[in-house]
Amino acid sequence: MIAEAGLELVPSSIQDHPSVKNYAKKIGRRPDEVLLQTSYHYRVMTERKLPFWWKRGRPDMIHFSLLTALSTPLFMERKLNVYVSTLQDKLILIDHNLRLPKSYFRFEGVIMNLFKDKVIRDPSNKTNLIELKDNITFEEAIHEVVRPDKTIGFSINGSPSSLNEVITENVKDAKNYCFVVGGFQRGHFGNDITRTLDRIYAISHYGLESHIVIARILYECEKLT
Amino acid sequence: MIAEAGLELVPSSIQDHPSVKNYAKKIGRRPDEVLLQTSYHYRVMTERKLPFWWKRGRPDMIHFSLLTALSTPLFMERKLNVYVSTLQDKLILIDHNLRLPKSYFRFEGVIMNLFKDKVIRDPSNKTNLIELKDNITFEEAIHEVVRPDKTIGFSINGSPSSLNEVITENVKDAKNYCFVVGGFQRGHFGNDITRTLDRIYAISHYGLESHIVIARILYECEKLT
Repeated sequence: MIAEAGLELVPSSIQDHPSVKNYAKKIGRRPDEVLLQTSYHYRVMTERKLPFWWKRGRPDMIHFSLLTALSTPLFMERKLNVYVSTLQDKLILIDHNLRLPKSYFRFEGVIMNLFKDKVIRDPSNKTNLIELKDNITFEEAIHEVVRPDKTIGFSINGSPSSLNEVITENVKDAKNYCFVVGGFQRGHFGNDITRTLDRIYAISHYGLESHIVIARILYECEKLT
Repeated sequence: MIAEAGLELVPSSIQDHPSVKNYAKKIGRRPDEVLLQTSYHYRVMTERKLPFWWKRGRPDMIHFSLLTALSTPLFMERKLNVYVSTLQDKLILIDHNLRLPKSYFRFEGVIMNLFKDKVIRDPSNKTNLIELKDNITFEEAIHEVVRPDKTIGFSINGSPSSLNEVITENVKDAKNYCFVVGGFQRGHFGNDITRTLDRIYAISHYGLESHIVIARILYECEKLT
């Protein structure tokens, strides 16, 4: 699961800003339909002091992280479920039949439609390819939707360990594990996240990008299968 | 090194097509400055039967692959040099001080400027951050620029092996190794690539995405350091 993901529509408090209106016009959408993105909206996010602005507006990071997870043999073999829990307590559920666009422009389109319609269905059989649930905290998502036997977070603030050890020590039976990686650019997990995690590990001296951590976790898990 | 990368400007034979002209107008560039991209130009690429069209027009793949390589501790510690050899015999050299944009839109801008100006310099000290050399084949790039002791390719057509074995068997001394991954969506390495490679391995039953293979190779190499 990607936690505290910086993935949201532009909040109403800054929809009047020229950077938002111009970008919306450029892509042919209304300002309230556009994703918040630091690459376009950094100045207004900092000027108007959006709370936790440093964790917000990174759909590009979520795109890479999802592409990394969804391109693994584990996901193709349906041994991995992928969830995104956002900073605004929304939960995104991803079906194994979703083909995530590799082009950022098309990904942005899918996510904007998801925020508007709450679900995108397969046109052929009407199953949900990707779904958005509102008002569900990370803790609720873990206990009510994902329901793992153990929840393991990765953060530079965790106990230093080699990833190989983390995976072989924890994942040695047929239980369900939920691995949690932050979906934000700067800062650390909030208290509501850390109290839900059973263990938190630091697998590098570096603050690694989420997609790098995801690639490594899933590769080590694949070796055990 | 990423080989046969699908990274090029729109060829002159299709610059008159509306999909190219409209896209150029949208991003404020001339049609001859725009990158070939299957997400926008797929129809004209197939209709006009661009040679090897199935290997071309994937700057998004190159973006992910580079972000994956440049976000690793190996690259940050300057133990890894990264090169891109394109299908049109251009070679891209990347300096350790380059901060590659995570936003695709900004990456596209950098690469368009690189194709136009052949080099992007650090404004503060005038060193080359990223450089493009013309008319240099993959084989010339390996023998004259990279000069590794051994060149190891990864392809689903190679000898089946676990990546762990490939790395521990080959990378056990202080020699220089060049790992080669394809930068195209479909097909296999051309003969000019395969004859330059010392070994070719298949590390999965699946045709893995380049960025996934890169993440795994560099993670295994890092474990040895």
